[in-house]
Amino acid sequence: MQKRKHVEEQRGAGRAQIFELIRKAGSIARIDIAKATLVSPATVTAITSELIDAGLVEEITPDTPRENAKRGRPRVALKVRGDAFYVAGVKVARDTISAMLVDFEGTEIASQETALELSTMTPEALAKSIFGAVSDICSDNHLPLENLSAVGVGLAGLVDAARNFVHWSPSLDRRNVDIGAALSLHLDCPVMVENDANLVAKAEQLFGLGRTISDFVVVTIEHGVGMGIVIDGQLYRGARGCGAEFGHTKVQLEGALCQCGQRGCLEAYIGDYALLREANSVLPGAAVSTLAELWELAQSGNDQARTVFERAGKIFAMGLANVVNIFDPEMIILAGHRADFDHLNLDGVIEELANHVVEVDAPMTKIQAHQWGDRMWAKGAAAYALDGFSALKIREVSATTG
Amino acid sequence: MQKRKHVEEQRGAGRAQIFELIRKAGSIARIDIAKATLVSPATVTAITSELIDAGLVEEITPDTPRENAKRGRPRVALKVRGDAFYVAGVKVARDTISAMLVDFEGTEIASQETALELSTMTPEALAKSIFGAVSDICSDNHLPLENLSAVGVGLAGLVDAARNFVHWSPSLDRRNVDIGAALSLHLDCPVMVENDANLVAKAEQLFGLGRTISDFVVVTIEHGVGMGIVIDGQLYRGARGCGAEFGHTKVQLEGALCQCGQRGCLEAYIGDYALLREANSVLPGAAVSTLAELWELAQSGNDQARTVFERAGKIFAMGLANVVNIFDPEMIILAGHRADFDHLNLDGVIEELANHVVEVDAPMTKIQAHQWGDRMWAKGAAAYALDGFSALKIREVSATTG
Repeated sequence: MQKRKHVEEQRGAGRAQIFELIRKAGSIARIDIAKATLVSPATVTAITSELIDAGLVEEITPDTPRENAKRGRPRVALKVRGDAFYVAGVKVARDTISAMLVDFEGTEIASQETALELSTMTPEALAKSIFGAVSDICSDNHLPLENLSAVGVGLAGLVDAARNFVHWSPSLDRRNVDIGAALSLHLDCPVMVENDANLVAKAEQLFGLGRTISDFVVVTIEHGVGMGIVIDGQLYRGARGCGAEFGHTKVQLEGALCQCGQRGCLEAYIGDYALLREANSVLPGAAVSTLAELWELAQSGNDQARTVFERAGKIFAMGLANVVNIFDPEMIILAGHRADFDHLNLDGVIEELANHVVEVDAPMTKIQAHQWGDRMWAKGAAAYALDGFSALKIREVSATTG
Repeated sequence: MQKRKHVEEQRGAGRAQIFELIRKAGSIARIDIAKATLVSPATVTAITSELIDAGLVEEITPDTPRENAKRGRPRVALKVRGDAFYVAGVKVARDTISAMLVDFEGTEIASQETALELSTMTPEALAKSIFGAVSDICSDNHLPLENLSAVGVGLAGLVDAARNFVHWSPSLDRRNVDIGAALSLHLDCPVMVENDANLVAKAEQLFGLGRTISDFVVVTIEHGVGMGIVIDGQLYRGARGCGAEFGHTKVQLEGALCQCGQRGCLEAYIGDYALLREANSVLPGAAVSTLAELWELAQSGNDQARTVFERAGKIFAMGLANVVNIFDPEMIILAGHRADFDHLNLDGVIEELANHVVEVDAPMTKIQAHQWGDRMWAKGAAAYALDGFSALKIREVSATTG
């Protein structure tokens, strides 16, 4: 029956809402859940019993403040059961793979980083590398692999997170890879794959500069250029899971050739490879092979090297301006290794930006650089897996209790 | 007290949620409201009584189907009181001003269009024109002006809707205009001013192609280029109310000069004025003064005229591709007078678009052209005023009942 189905869906949504509230609150009494959600106390009692029976939530008796002690029995609160489940987060970078282990409350247990032999791999080799990082961190921390409940994985490229499907990634030697299937040959638990910049946005939201704001954009610049968008507190992915392709927005009709095969992409002007390419086409004599070399040349007074960085900075400002003109976010967070921003001259970029953003007599979108290593990207991956796994468990509860 | 305040806010949110549900349902019984919202039946009864007392909602007894008739008294349902309030919507275009009158259920009572003498006015003259359109439609329909509850106004330009403040509009002869204050000299009821493309998005969502989708983008091309963004069913405005400035996204570093004063804006390549400007700089002999003339020239085989349109189409495709690359929306709706799109060669634009959008093996964002006149823009303005006025009334109820 249509109506019955609707009521069940509402009940399921109520379970998810209440679990999320308990997690965010740390610990909270049933009556406060009812007040905060407008759900009736009877329904709150029913739903929280289901969550306790499923092992997701536990009762605790908080230390009772003196003044309330005389009022009789102490108020019982509910909290998420930290030791109920463990999940891992993995970030695959160009040269390294990072993993982190967290408990069901999101508390970090351990993290580690391993070098990668190749940056571009077959799906099988990538799945093996990810599995290796996960099994290492588990065994190092005496957690049997079968006790791991979920794994979150962050990859650069075009990822359809709903299907664990990679349209394209610089870490893979081919397009259209069902990386979820490749990983399931090694891992029995649920795996959740997501674009790495989206996971940085998730990490910024939970642990970083995005904690107190509801609309922000994260831009990552490393070998390529990534973007994660948070709107109204939610990661925005687009209709096909392929939004936020900032690096492939076009800044010039029929412009420079990009590694994606198209022309005029922002990335083809500001990515590491783009700068080296331009430098080697204009610098006379010996070729430069790293950005550090080129940077040193520019710092030592080589005008041609300097102008390569200058143009990149100008075009980066133009690209950022388009994000401001379309989104007008509260904040743009430039995340990644700080070194990667130095050569774009952030202060100059912010100044240049003002020439491209539609003029209003109001303060500009804040631009903040935030340096953090792959460890924090892995933390974003773990948080993402925690979210996904919790949702799975809530759906399980809904399926068994109807 | 903090907690008490929180509970009140929740109660207020419950009122808004329940009113919105009643409006969307057309008519709905109290028990079905409780089921659909998870709000307890007792709270539903309390809140709906408040809404009835405030005159926003009324009880009706739907025609009872035969089979249920024997079960005793017919089930009472609730609906929004259509004749409780009347609101007007106004769209200010370049040469005309359109107005529409709707009742509290959103049913259209009347609409009319008047020519404007000037396209750019002082704040006082614009306020007078808007007031004239509103008072005319009221008197023509025998509605005393003092019985009008709210007015929604759509303007081109940068509008901070929360403050009825215009940063910049082609309809005004100066920047930074408190148009809300100017209108309040003429109108006693609440006035809600919004960017006109946002109102088209609102109209598409309520009455047009956006009815069944939750994420879409509306692009309007007339004299200038506008955009409205709907994400997760909500109009997205950005942090300063200045998002969705598609026309001023930059498509060329240090490119063509735009009417906004900056360089390289999309609008400076595809707006009406931009095409005429380019045509007159390359066509030998007599100048063209309208797009229709230029179009005729191109159709009659003039290669220079043709190439002006071709470039505009290419740059439009590049601009649209950036929207797809960033948002990946389900649909982009090109709204406005159909004639304005002919010269951009929509089929060619869609073909060209594929060269600029990041490649995935999934169907492309749908691009749909939707021709409708200023009457529908006015309908969007009326719907916007209805939303805003309802929210005001709900807050009033919350303030009086605590």
